[in-house]
Amino acid sequence: METATARTENDGAAFGINHKDMANAIRALAMDAVEKANSGHPGMPMGMADVATVLFSQFLKFDSRHPEWPDRDRFVLSAGHGSMLLYALLYLTGYPQMTIDEIQRFRQIDSKTPGHPEYGHTQGVETTTGPLGQGLGNAVGMALAERMLNARYGDALVDHYTYCIAGDGCLMEGISHEAISLAGHLKLNKLIVLFDDNHISIDGPTELTVSDDQVARFIAHGWNATRVDGHDPKAVAAAIAAAKKSDKPSMIACRTTIGYGAPKKANTASAHGSPLGKEEIAGAREKLGWKYPPFEIPLDILNAWRDVGKRGQGAFAEWTKRHAGAAQMAEFDRTQKGELPEGFAAAVNDIKNAFAKEAPKLATRQSSQKVIEGLSAVMPELVGGSADLTGSNLTKGKAAVPVKAGDYAGGYIYYGVREHGMAAAMNGIALHGGFVPFGGTFLCFTDYARPSIRLSALMNQRVIYVMTHDSIGQGEDGPTHQPVEHLAALRAIPNMLVFRPCDSMETAECWALALAAKNQPSILALTRQAVPHLRADAAVANHCARGGYIIRPAEGARQATILATGSEVSIAIDAQALLAKEGIGAAVVSLPCWALFDQQSEAYRQEVLGTGVRVAVEAMVSFGWERYLGPIGPKGGGFVGMTGFGASAPGPDVYKHFNITAAAVAEAVKARL
Amino acid sequence: METATARTENDGAAFGINHKDMANAIRALAMDAVEKANSGHPGMPMGMADVATVLFSQFLKFDSRHPEWPDRDRFVLSAGHGSMLLYALLYLTGYPQMTIDEIQRFRQIDSKTPGHPEYGHTQGVETTTGPLGQGLGNAVGMALAERMLNARYGDALVDHYTYCIAGDGCLMEGISHEAISLAGHLKLNKLIVLFDDNHISIDGPTELTVSDDQVARFIAHGWNATRVDGHDPKAVAAAIAAAKKSDKPSMIACRTTIGYGAPKKANTASAHGSPLGKEEIAGAREKLGWKYPPFEIPLDILNAWRDVGKRGQGAFAEWTKRHAGAAQMAEFDRTQKGELPEGFAAAVNDIKNAFAKEAPKLATRQSSQKVIEGLSAVMPELVGGSADLTGSNLTKGKAAVPVKAGDYAGGYIYYGVREHGMAAAMNGIALHGGFVPFGGTFLCFTDYARPSIRLSALMNQRVIYVMTHDSIGQGEDGPTHQPVEHLAALRAIPNMLVFRPCDSMETAECWALALAAKNQPSILALTRQAVPHLRADAAVANHCARGGYIIRPAEGARQATILATGSEVSIAIDAQALLAKEGIGAAVVSLPCWALFDQQSEAYRQEVLGTGVRVAVEAMVSFGWERYLGPIGPKGGGFVGMTGFGASAPGPDVYKHFNITAAAVAEAVKARL
Repeated sequence: METATARTENDGAAFGINHKDMANAIRALAMDAVEKANSGHPGMPMGMADVATVLFSQFLKFDSRHPEWPDRDRFVLSAGHGSMLLYALLYLTGYPQMTIDEIQRFRQIDSKTPGHPEYGHTQGVETTTGPLGQGLGNAVGMALAERMLNARYGDALVDHYTYCIAGDGCLMEGISHEAISLAGHLKLNKLIVLFDDNHISIDGPTELTVSDDQVARFIAHGWNATRVDGHDPKAVAAAIAAAKKSDKPSMIACRTTIGYGAPKKANTASAHGSPLGKEEIAGAREKLGWKYPPFEIPLDILNAWRDVGKRGQGAFAEWTKRHAGAAQMAEFDRTQKGELPEGFAAAVNDIKNAFAKEAPKLATRQSSQKVIEGLSAVMPELVGGSADLTGSNLTKGKAAVPVKAGDYAGGYIYYGVREHGMAAAMNGIALHGGFVPFGGTFLCFTDYARPSIRLSALMNQRVIYVMTHDSIGQGEDGPTHQPVEHLAALRAIPNMLVFRPCDSMETAECWALALAAKNQPSILALTRQAVPHLRADAAVANHCARGGYIIRPAEGARQATILATGSEVSIAIDAQALLAKEGIGAAVVSLPCWALFDQQSEAYRQEVLGTGVRVAVEAMVSFGWERYLGPIGPKGGGFVGMTGFGASAPGPDVYKHFNITAAAVAEAVKARL
Repeated sequence: METATARTENDGAAFGINHKDMANAIRALAMDAVEKANSGHPGMPMGMADVATVLFSQFLKFDSRHPEWPDRDRFVLSAGHGSMLLYALLYLTGYPQMTIDEIQRFRQIDSKTPGHPEYGHTQGVETTTGPLGQGLGNAVGMALAERMLNARYGDALVDHYTYCIAGDGCLMEGISHEAISLAGHLKLNKLIVLFDDNHISIDGPTELTVSDDQVARFIAHGWNATRVDGHDPKAVAAAIAAAKKSDKPSMIACRTTIGYGAPKKANTASAHGSPLGKEEIAGAREKLGWKYPPFEIPLDILNAWRDVGKRGQGAFAEWTKRHAGAAQMAEFDRTQKGELPEGFAAAVNDIKNAFAKEAPKLATRQSSQKVIEGLSAVMPELVGGSADLTGSNLTKGKAAVPVKAGDYAGGYIYYGVREHGMAAAMNGIALHGGFVPFGGTFLCFTDYARPSIRLSALMNQRVIYVMTHDSIGQGEDGPTHQPVEHLAALRAIPNMLVFRPCDSMETAECWALALAAKNQPSILALTRQAVPHLRADAAVANHCARGGYIIRPAEGARQATILATGSEVSIAIDAQALLAKEGIGAAVVSLPCWALFDQQSEAYRQEVLGTGVRVAVEAMVSFGWERYLGPIGPKGGGFVGMTGFGASAPGPDVYKHFNITAAAVAEAVKARL
């Protein structure tokens, strides 16, 4: 199905322009844009210009007029600080949005050329990079998604490569280990990593900080790995051509000179992250033989590049034809668009009805498993997994089939003990399109994945984090495994939906909301321990959609409101009963999602929160609860929860130890009446 | 100086008891304790009992009566879920606190035997482990600290090994990559990792998730690595003996059977994290030839183990003698105890006086560098570093000498692009004793190090995180590099001091507080951009010690209070001036450390916060600010800050773009009067 990659024999000359001029066009744009911005990283684009020119002009399957073509090769610039490399390529190959004006507005407000590539902001940017190693992790997810979609739709619709440029920094980051190890294990042979092996990092020569043999390292993880001169276009082309034929993922260590062409700063750390300066740029122009003023690309060179941008037109046309004739076209298109299936609402209701009927006393992680099983039946694009806690997170439905090296037809991924790699891969899977990924670990270990979780939010990606063992109720594993600050830390992330359902019914509703939130990631914080079934209704209405609601109205006059989430809602309800015995009317509010609650009208929020005494109970630190309680203290709101780290003991003992009980909640209310 | 390791030739028989019985004592305690707790991980202790027996009985330099001996070998159980291995060893070798009662109270409230080993809670536990890979990262820090101390104090006082048991999970985690790569680069040859190569993880056989060739991997990172049968004591002993002579760090892959001895569950995932059950335990007793009831160790076997606990007595006595005669004893003891030097207060005052005199307009990261230089002169135990951002974090004083492979006399560590590994290593350095570590990256990338940062807090370790580029003021790098939720996420961590100083004077004060907080980690959030000098006084009193204070009283009647931190304090002061022009009196409060402010008396806090209108300005999301503002809204407190992610542009433009300006603050005050 690969039609656009036949030109491995030339060095760009097919376009009437030699390779060197084409690569120098990238170098000139990079150094001039950084200089004009007085900020940025010229060294990497100048060093990798040869490699990128070979890749784009001879291999990359793309059509600059159709950046959304689902079967395009993916190009990930993991070393995102080299953003001018990408912007130069997007401009040169003719992506409509990337004008020379945008290049000139590099790193300025509202430009299409921010300091690091931002997905969704700039056409042709496949993922947001900059935090090192993330792009590599995303590329693994994309390459996996490609194989999984290929298994479902065949070569006719899905058959592409994923290329990734990574630097020393990416490969020093821990996430690179998780990504490489996972890709090697799964034999993602259509993943090709081009390592910008320039021996320079910010602090100086990499010899200061690292002595890794990267080729040996990748081989140890089941990759093909080779070394080439990154300034020899033929050698680079030959290595890429060989990599494409491999049955393993491939890493090509491209030995390059950072700041290639700069007379004094090439091969030094000062070329990495600062403008070269006028004199050095003049010297580079001379050395490179580039005679043109800043931001001016001679027409013949520009045309050669524009031809590169059109190289994929034929392949795109053929693909469009195959797509139109495909039996699975509708399903393919729906999942590519990320739309929910027609049967979605009905499936959610079926699950809710079953819960209403059975009134199960389950851990919410168990309820979640039932929801996953119910929805997977109508949403085959749901792709689950766990970071080696499948039996604890309960992320695997009975029917789910594991994905294996060479057999990608399943929908369940054993991510291994790789929380960070899992999250980055899920971002890649979501970005690729065609799937809705969810993955599990313990809530406490969101810390391990936090850089990728943040990027899910920044990139508006629907990635669902199934985070179980969500409190001290975790029990015996103790404080290292018991989250206390994690809900606060996650709620603070912009564009993140943090759900903490209180029972099976809310679990179904929160799952439905997470799946419906097309442009937001979600955290589902779920209990290890069983919780009572609290919601008898199976209303079609999704109560959790408003983020918070009165789950138990006060008996008699409402003197107080008890706010709670998750497993503490039943404690709040018990406290309500204790208070009722003393003639004190208290309403109980379940607040499964603060972010959604905060979007409701002032009137609704005030109605839910009430005007009397407010006490919250959550087995977490109070940080952030002042939003609903006002200042916490004897004269202010009450909070029953944690003030420090947890303890190792059976869950119920830990709750007692920290006095997170119905009696404590009732006391807190009474002390404020 | 190594005197306690001569018995490599025997297999424990020197103690009159064979190796097998000694190892089985560990196995029995582990399976019985887990069974009694009905919770825990029997498989790993049973699998690694042979290796641990060899290590403790033949190699480990320790004296169970002197767990605090500074020159003891360090033993780190990175696979912390196998805590019963460690607890069994502590009991058997006679650590005073570890009684058989404590073993029987495994995983119960207030026992010395929590689910995962907790530093400070249990004598003989060198570091808190459980979150996978952390112990390995700590061990690298310990091994580095040992070499650095050795360079300062010589073999007479410091000359020991660091041993670490790591599992598949540890080695799958990304942090393992950073740790291994750093240790290999620095040639930490006294670090020996024993890999529990049991081919089983929670989800099942490791073949489900990982295909790494670990031996080849470690070699690629500059280690010695070998494979042995982990149930062959002679082979294990020979490998450790060889490793001790190496000029590189060593990894010994010990091929073991998880749950060794369990007739049905050995070599299965079901031995990993659940009690074996009565029947299986009975079978294991039979198979192992262990005829004794639960928690009963026959006296001859116990005595053999107790002798192991005394093996180091001679070495300890010799060391004590050398220590008493050492010229550097006082300095050694002071730094081991973590006490500040006599000249500390004077040095802080000198720095403050210089700042008062110069009134510098510096970025707080620049002020921080001056503080580092000033204090390093009196605190040679200050050990700095950066995750490849030395020139940005400004963590290196002029006089600081880099640590290199084979030359550990310096005090500055180029950690490379390894934020997580740096933080874990700093925990290890702090735990080892003798140094106060600090390390830098961008505040945004605290996310990469968060699991280790949390452990700094949980372990009460004085680790100082110098986190620069602390806001959108970072500028052109854009939203991937601009923290917005990070202060909230860090403030939520228990026992963590988060400082955000507003100028050079506060920077000096916050540094002084961080260094004086012997049992707490600190985050210093510092600006990239210059900020005005705001504090003219150089009072000996440390204003920041109260966490918050009125930095500018209201002119005239105090109608409002403007709260701010860091770079936004000067914006608040500008707003104060704007309001004064309109006859509105507003006090400005600097709140450099919430945690310290929250410890002040109610009266002081109310005096600082004032009774009138309150508006806060911080270039972050508002999450958590309700603590001081009450509910934020038109009728409540005002907040000028971020509501989502940042943007790429020059710093001042970004502030304008998000309307974080003095005018906006003044408007927010006026709208509430």
